[in-house]
Amino acid sequence: MREAYHVELEQLADNLADMSVQVANAMELATKALLNADLSLAEQVIGADAKIDDARAECEEQAYALLALQAPVATDLRTVLAVIHAAESLERMGDLALHVAKAARRRHPDSALPDPVRPLFSEMGEAVVRLALRVQEVIKSRDVEAARSLEADDDRIDEIHRHLFSVIMAKDWEFGVPAAVDVTLLGRFYERYADHAVSVAKRMVFVVTGRMPGYGSDDDI
Amino acid sequence: MREAYHVELEQLADNLADMSVQVANAMELATKALLNADLSLAEQVIGADAKIDDARAECEEQAYALLALQAPVATDLRTVLAVIHAAESLERMGDLALHVAKAARRRHPDSALPDPVRPLFSEMGEAVVRLALRVQEVIKSRDVEAARSLEADDDRIDEIHRHLFSVIMAKDWEFGVPAAVDVTLLGRFYERYADHAVSVAKRMVFVVTGRMPGYGSDDDI
Repeated sequence: MREAYHVELEQLADNLADMSVQVANAMELATKALLNADLSLAEQVIGADAKIDDARAECEEQAYALLALQAPVATDLRTVLAVIHAAESLERMGDLALHVAKAARRRHPDSALPDPVRPLFSEMGEAVVRLALRVQEVIKSRDVEAARSLEADDDRIDEIHRHLFSVIMAKDWEFGVPAAVDVTLLGRFYERYADHAVSVAKRMVFVVTGRMPGYGSDDDI
Repeated sequence: MREAYHVELEQLADNLADMSVQVANAMELATKALLNADLSLAEQVIGADAKIDDARAECEEQAYALLALQAPVATDLRTVLAVIHAAESLERMGDLALHVAKAARRRHPDSALPDPVRPLFSEMGEAVVRLALRVQEVIKSRDVEAARSLEADDDRIDEIHRHLFSVIMAKDWEFGVPAAVDVTLLGRFYERYADHAVSVAKRMVFVVTGRMPGYGSDDDI
């Protein structure tokens, strides 16, 4: 039974790693859609979101089956519960990529991004996709150091996010309130995406070490 | 053992109901702090957030103990997992009240809210607090109809939220970009708070009926 348990747990971790790649792809395409006002890319992300929701439901079902059939205890139990939480965060990252794609679609054929903030979104997009791919590595390798290194990328995203606010709040912002509102919400979507990525990595550290690195959310504006 | 299980499960549900009241109070005070630029109320909400985080950690520990010691299956297993998810959503609602309080503190002694949007936030605040208190009733009563009735309040919040955007995007908005950015983020905090409340209620319906009413998040801007 222990053997079957570990095979199933590996399978569950593989599915979680696949979800990380899916949400990384979703955010990469959504960012391209946003930067290039590309409607068909936006539609592609919007159409693919249901698959991420399904992947999460499947992870949860697998985890439930594992709990019901194997009744794991101690570390094994915490591992399965960490997977359930991680799947929820990954689904949420997919939702945030979806929101970015919908913002691109809503403004099409215009761009939702005034020129001065484009490089910031380009950099934030790259940084958050890198985070999601690192999450995949962490799930596969269970490498605690790799998980901790995510925080540096997350700090960089927070920095860009703050810079973004200073740009739209500046006196010489000439694009009006509607563009500022779009940029505010879009910035928040990227920042939340990064927070969820860090939270998945923390859950994985917990699986390896049995200790959760910091509880609660770091989510501040 | 079944008897012990049900006693513990009731205790867990009571703790979850208490959390709903805590996050309702947090949002009620945060809204007052926001509407009246009341620094001491804002500080009170900010200081109390750690208690909500602790309550969540305690719910989770209780749920883990229940899983480890009683190894529930079928509906019982799903109930415990629903509680874990619900505790996570409630903690998040506490975080969102915290964000509102921090926004009030950041702008003090000024108000973060220009006059034309004050009635909208007053109404949204009342509606979301009502939602959180209904969540408490649903947890206590397991009343499926009461759970479904939350959606009407949530629809109203979405309506106010859309109206808020039309106010700040209007040509006669005279309060500039910084105020619009504040209002955008604040509006989103209330809307997300309501979404989480609905999600807790859905989890409770699931506990009673064994069927989840709609998967995934309805979260749209």
